[in-house]
Amino acid sequence: MTKVEKPDVFIIGSGPAGGAVARTCVAEGKKVVVADYQPFGGTCPLRGCEPKKFLFDVTNVALRRKHMTERGLRGCLAINWKMMMTAMAEMRDPIPSLVENFYEKHGIIAVHGKAQFASPDTILVNKKKYQPDRIVIAAGATPRPLDFSGNELLMNTDQFFEIRELPSRIVFIGGGFIAFELSHIAAIAGAQVDVILRSERFLRRFDPSLVECMIEASRDMGVRFHTMMPPSSLKKDRDELVLCAGEDNIEFRADCIVHAAGRIAHVAALNPQKGQLELNQKGGINVNEFMQSTSNPRVYAAGDVVGNTMELTPVASMEGMVVSHNILHGNGERPDYSVVPYTLFTHPPLSTVGLQEEEAQAQKIPYKVYEGSAAGWSEYRRIGERYPSYKVLVSKKDDTILGATMNGHNSEEIINIFAFAMRTKTTVAELNKWLWAYPSFGYTIRYMLK
Amino acid sequence: MTKVEKPDVFIIGSGPAGGAVARTCVAEGKKVVVADYQPFGGTCPLRGCEPKKFLFDVTNVALRRKHMTERGLRGCLAINWKMMMTAMAEMRDPIPSLVENFYEKHGIIAVHGKAQFASPDTILVNKKKYQPDRIVIAAGATPRPLDFSGNELLMNTDQFFEIRELPSRIVFIGGGFIAFELSHIAAIAGAQVDVILRSERFLRRFDPSLVECMIEASRDMGVRFHTMMPPSSLKKDRDELVLCAGEDNIEFRADCIVHAAGRIAHVAALNPQKGQLELNQKGGINVNEFMQSTSNPRVYAAGDVVGNTMELTPVASMEGMVVSHNILHGNGERPDYSVVPYTLFTHPPLSTVGLQEEEAQAQKIPYKVYEGSAAGWSEYRRIGERYPSYKVLVSKKDDTILGATMNGHNSEEIINIFAFAMRTKTTVAELNKWLWAYPSFGYTIRYMLK
Repeated sequence: MTKVEKPDVFIIGSGPAGGAVARTCVAEGKKVVVADYQPFGGTCPLRGCEPKKFLFDVTNVALRRKHMTERGLRGCLAINWKMMMTAMAEMRDPIPSLVENFYEKHGIIAVHGKAQFASPDTILVNKKKYQPDRIVIAAGATPRPLDFSGNELLMNTDQFFEIRELPSRIVFIGGGFIAFELSHIAAIAGAQVDVILRSERFLRRFDPSLVECMIEASRDMGVRFHTMMPPSSLKKDRDELVLCAGEDNIEFRADCIVHAAGRIAHVAALNPQKGQLELNQKGGINVNEFMQSTSNPRVYAAGDVVGNTMELTPVASMEGMVVSHNILHGNGERPDYSVVPYTLFTHPPLSTVGLQEEEAQAQKIPYKVYEGSAAGWSEYRRIGERYPSYKVLVSKKDDTILGATMNGHNSEEIINIFAFAMRTKTTVAELNKWLWAYPSFGYTIRYMLK
Repeated sequence: MTKVEKPDVFIIGSGPAGGAVARTCVAEGKKVVVADYQPFGGTCPLRGCEPKKFLFDVTNVALRRKHMTERGLRGCLAINWKMMMTAMAEMRDPIPSLVENFYEKHGIIAVHGKAQFASPDTILVNKKKYQPDRIVIAAGATPRPLDFSGNELLMNTDQFFEIRELPSRIVFIGGGFIAFELSHIAAIAGAQVDVILRSERFLRRFDPSLVECMIEASRDMGVRFHTMMPPSSLKKDRDELVLCAGEDNIEFRADCIVHAAGRIAHVAALNPQKGQLELNQKGGINVNEFMQSTSNPRVYAAGDVVGNTMELTPVASMEGMVVSHNILHGNGERPDYSVVPYTLFTHPPLSTVGLQEEEAQAQKIPYKVYEGSAAGWSEYRRIGERYPSYKVLVSKKDDTILGATMNGHNSEEIINIFAFAMRTKTTVAELNKWLWAYPSFGYTIRYMLK
């Protein structure tokens, strides 16, 4: 029997949450171990935001060119899928060794393997035991299991990022972030794309009227949406895959069917019972306001594995910083979810921050709405965008921003300004007085708030 | 002799400054006359920011495609100059009648003609006399006269926006905004472009190290810069134009030579002596803190004609609003030039706000600098941009932003965030805690301020 290792901090997962904890704790002289059974770096840089944004940026140029045909751009532009994926991989593939080199340089011990709880204070990886002072679970999320027959024929989104030849016909199952973002990329690249949605309502975190504008833009790209279509079976028919879905068992034939129906906290593989880990309603690690397990005080958790917060990289990093502080200095810091701007990178991107109108109504908060189409503004007319739109909720009480949603080019930049206004409780009257770079998309908040 | 008209407010110039005064004063029941000898709308929408940004947006797609050759974009893209200029004109040309329709609808009287002072209280247009209660000069700026022989062969930038065939070889004289912006557009569109600069130093409003990064990007596009080259003569030689410049009288042969050597307040044509108008050192209307003429209290001025402030559309609009308030309610409002972000729309754009490092040094303000290249950040690596860079000055006293400059794609959006931070005196410590949409260019302020 090898000796039991006793590091100060043992971190399960090497993504933005785990990485933040590792960096901060090692800088304060702690002995830190990070375990991951996948290449180091986590979902965001390897299988999430970063590769997706790469594909978005390339396809966005192709789409902009199409929108600008009548504006003086000559020549056709197409996506060479293989070359795009190769270039994306060239940016992505060095990341794990960069992360490991960083760990080595700073004395963080990297362990490749699946970590499991053997008891409330003991972690097992590759048959080796660790009894750390503090355990941090930052294991991320994993695709939600689907329970129809033939679901083993589904491709998951991790695999989608590895496709070297673009399938002619792709079906995406799911109505979340990943389904929308990847369906737009595939459609612009030339695939025939169908998106199969279980219910009528999807992208629930965004205002439905703005979602509708984005859907209009999707339709112009040829993406077809099918609502009220829970899948019932999947089978192979010669070279094709055949998905049956909906009450009438409608058949969808495709070369590739992608499971993009959401993700759940990656907890089951950790042996949570042995770790005495209470789980929350969403199946994530149940934590208190200090990101500490409610049932095992040795354990903290951060990022998607918490399951009860927004699955976003900046949120994971923030939670990692909170955990680090609480481990190093005792429980004192809390995550601040009050102002979290985020963007769905469809073409065009859909961005939001703060309160949705439905929430304001439910909470009986007195608000006024500034909303409309931005299609007539020169910023969007110049680039030929047809469905840009916005909705801004303003407090009737004190004229501050309660929330904002917008659909359009660079909405990921504009939303940062509204986030800033919310942070600083800046009033609409003040925003309308201030100067912004002109022309910029940020400047258009002046048109929105008129 | 026709009767003398006695409106409440007579505005010379229909651009952003004059337009703001007209709209605001007529809404308060004033009788308003606006005179312009050019099509209504002013420089920004007709011969400035708007058409320029149109050409920037189109050429930007072509350049992005070039940067992304190795990233999976297949097919060549070229600029069809004629089509681009036609499309630009299609967006621009309806503006004067839209402005006039708006005026008509709201009861603003539009007068086409050159306005001149006949006496301190009398304006003459088309031989008709006006004795308004208040006169607002918002006549904009006009190209600075150049005094070398043959200067009548120069094309001005207004004319450049009308060229329907792209000349093969273009020389731009001047080192200001317009020279840089148009030279980049022409170079991407396929012209051979030389920029002739009078001295060693240009774009003085921007940090020289950031200007150098932009110049590097310009060189990659094939734009050639020639410093210390004051022009001495221009002549025609068959189909060519020949410009001699510099101590050694170097010859530049081109098909088109553009005067982009700055603009001066458009005052001379107004008969300023008869209006008893004191001029400032820059030749603009001398105004007090309320934008009122220092020598003729009946007169206010706003926009580029003031000559002592930044020639920017948002500044002109703000000054127009200040003038409106002071006319309607008595002198009480002052323009606020403290935080004015602005962007030079080169490829990539160069943006700045607040204090420059040279100013901080001269004023002995204790500051620290965050600066460097952003070329390694994934935001810029994805799009293949080679010289993105930033410099942020932070107060040593209270950790707030004193100023920021950056060169790179979407810098016009990022600079708005720094402007917001300056307005609200937000500290770097706070900025580093807050969440931003990810990935967005705004998010990169987290990398800058590390």
